[in-house]
Amino acid sequence: MNRVVTLASRPTGVPDESNFELVEQPVPQPGPGDVLVRVLWVSVDPYQRGRMSEARSYAKPVEVGEVMTAQAIGEVVESNDRRFSPGDLVVGQLGWQDYAVARAGTLRKVPRELDPPTLALHVIGTTGFTAYFGLLDVCEPKPGDTVVVSGAAGAVGQIVGQLAKLMGCRTVGIAGGPDKATDCKLYGYDAAIDYKNDDVRASLKDACPDGVDVYFDNVGGEISAAVHARLNVGARIAICGQVSQYNAVRPEPSFHPGLLIVFRAKMEGFLVSDYAHRFDEAARRLLRWIAEGKLQWREDVTDGLENIPHAFLGMLRGENRGKALVKVADRS
Amino acid sequence: MNRVVTLASRPTGVPDESNFELVEQPVPQPGPGDVLVRVLWVSVDPYQRGRMSEARSYAKPVEVGEVMTAQAIGEVVESNDRRFSPGDLVVGQLGWQDYAVARAGTLRKVPRELDPPTLALHVIGTTGFTAYFGLLDVCEPKPGDTVVVSGAAGAVGQIVGQLAKLMGCRTVGIAGGPDKATDCKLYGYDAAIDYKNDDVRASLKDACPDGVDVYFDNVGGEISAAVHARLNVGARIAICGQVSQYNAVRPEPSFHPGLLIVFRAKMEGFLVSDYAHRFDEAARRLLRWIAEGKLQWREDVTDGLENIPHAFLGMLRGENRGKALVKVADRS
Repeated sequence: MNRVVTLASRPTGVPDESNFELVEQPVPQPGPGDVLVRVLWVSVDPYQRGRMSEARSYAKPVEVGEVMTAQAIGEVVESNDRRFSPGDLVVGQLGWQDYAVARAGTLRKVPRELDPPTLALHVIGTTGFTAYFGLLDVCEPKPGDTVVVSGAAGAVGQIVGQLAKLMGCRTVGIAGGPDKATDCKLYGYDAAIDYKNDDVRASLKDACPDGVDVYFDNVGGEISAAVHARLNVGARIAICGQVSQYNAVRPEPSFHPGLLIVFRAKMEGFLVSDYAHRFDEAARRLLRWIAEGKLQWREDVTDGLENIPHAFLGMLRGENRGKALVKVADRS
Repeated sequence: MNRVVTLASRPTGVPDESNFELVEQPVPQPGPGDVLVRVLWVSVDPYQRGRMSEARSYAKPVEVGEVMTAQAIGEVVESNDRRFSPGDLVVGQLGWQDYAVARAGTLRKVPRELDPPTLALHVIGTTGFTAYFGLLDVCEPKPGDTVVVSGAAGAVGQIVGQLAKLMGCRTVGIAGGPDKATDCKLYGYDAAIDYKNDDVRASLKDACPDGVDVYFDNVGGEISAAVHARLNVGARIAICGQVSQYNAVRPEPSFHPGLLIVFRAKMEGFLVSDYAHRFDEAARRLLRWIAEGKLQWREDVTDGLENIPHAFLGMLRGENRGKALVKVADRS
C-alpha cells in the first residue's frame, strides 16, 4: 500500500494538522514513459503553503483530496523509460507520499558524488539554485556591496549569505531567535539581527553603516519595511518569498512604489524554475564551492511520512534550524 | 526689480495659493562663473510638489522663504563664463522668478533649430528624456508588447505612448476625463481609458486582451493596482511618478511585493538626472522623430509669472491639457 498525505481542507489563515489527512491507497502503476519511485526524503518549503490556497499564483493549487506537492528524493522501483533503472536515486516533484509515479522527463538523477545525497534537496537543488540565481542574476552583487538577507538562517537564506561573501560583499542576516542569529555566523554573515529580540531598525542602522545595496527578501512585511528605509541609490531587491504574508487571509499592501524613485531602486520577483536551463551551471559551481569548503549548511530532519504536516507547520512558524527535510524511508 | 514666487509655508495635504508668495527683490548679481538669465517660460511639474515637503526624497526640499524650483527657459543678460553670451537662449533650473543667477555649468543652450524653443522644456527636454529613458532603458519594450501608461495625456505620458508605438508595441493610455482620452488618440495610443468615467478594471481587460507586458506608471494608487492585476509573466514596471500620492499626508502602502513573484516581474524607479550623460543621444533621436512627423505634442500655456501657483495647482489636479508651461516674458 501507498501512504499519502492529502490536502483535507483549505486553511483560512494559519493552517493546522486538520488541513491534512493520511490515507492509504494502492501503489500506483507506471504507464508508458513513467517511472515508479519510492520516496526517501521529502522537502518541506514555504511555497507549499501557497499551493494550499486557491489565490491566484504562478502554479495551480493542490485540490482538496489530492496529495500535497513537494520536491523529494526517491529510489527508482520500476522504469518505463530508458534513462532510469531500478535503484537509481532521483529527485523530482514526488509529493508527500511513499510511492510516486512521475513522467521520466520531470526527474533528475541525484549525482553519485553527492554526499550526503540530501544535498540534492537543498544546496545542490532548487533551494541552492534559488539562492544562486536570485542573488547573482537578480541582484547582481558587486564587491563592497552591503547585502541584507531576511530569513537568513532558512534554507535559501543560509546559502545567499555565503554566496554574497564569495562575491566580496558585506553581509547582514535577519533571522528569528538567538539560535538562528548564532547560525548566521556559521553561514558567513558579518552581522546578524534577531528580529524577535532586537530593535530591527536600530540594529540595521548599526549593521549597515553604508546603507543597503542589495536586499534578498524572503519574508516581506514589517522586517522588509525596515530594510527599505536604509536602501542606497541603485539598490536591488530580489523578492524570493514573502513568508510573513502567506497565512494572511487578506494580505495588506506593504510597499509604497514611490520609494523606488527616491532610491532609483529595482524590485524584482523571480522563480527558480525559470532558470531550469542553467541548473547545470549552478550545480557545478555550488559543488565546487562545497568541495573547497566554502559553503556550510545545516539540515533539520524529521522522521516519518506521518510527521510531514508537523514538520511543515513548524517550518512555517520558523521552528526549523536549517533546511527542513522529512526522512520517509531508508535506501534499499 | 525681480519678482520671485517663494514657498510661503509647507502644505499639509493639498497645497493652495496661500502656500506661495509673490515678493519683489533686487535683481541678483552674477559672480565669477555665473550667468544672469531673464526667465521667459517656466515649466510646472508634479515633482515640484515633492520639493514643498520635508519628507525624505532624492532632492533637498525648497526652504520656506526660498524661490520655488523649476526648469525654465531664459535669455542670457550677463555672462561671466565664456560659453554663454547675452542673448543666448538657455534652459536650466531657474525657478519661479523673473531673473535667475545660475552657475554656467548647470545651463544648456537651447538648440537654434528648435521650433518652438519651448520644446526644450518638454519633448526635447527633461520631460522627453524622462519618457525616452524610462521607457527604453527601464522597460525595454519589445515589438508586440502591450504597454500601458498612466497619466497618458500628461507631459511625459504623451511622449511615452508615441515612443512605444515607434517600438512596435500595442499602447493603452489611462487619463482623466473625455478630453484627455481623446488626446490619447492624438498621441498614438491604440486604446484610451478615462479613469474618471470608465470602469478601469473592465476597460483594461478589454484593452489588453493579451495582458500587460510594460507598465509606465506616473500615478500609483488604485489605477496602478488595476494594471498590476493584468500583468504578464516577465512584466516590467517603471515607476516614473506617483502623483496620486503626492498630496497624501501619510501615503498608504499600495503594493504587495509578492505579486512580483507571481509574474516574475520587475518594478524599477528612475530619475532622468541619472541619464544626463546620455541626454544628447535622446535629444538627437527625439528631434529626428519630430522632423519625420512621428511625434505629436500639446502645450498648455498660462500667461504671467504671478499665475504660476494657479497653473501649478491646476496641473496637480490634472486640469492641464498637454505640457503645462507658464509664459513669463517675451524674448527681447
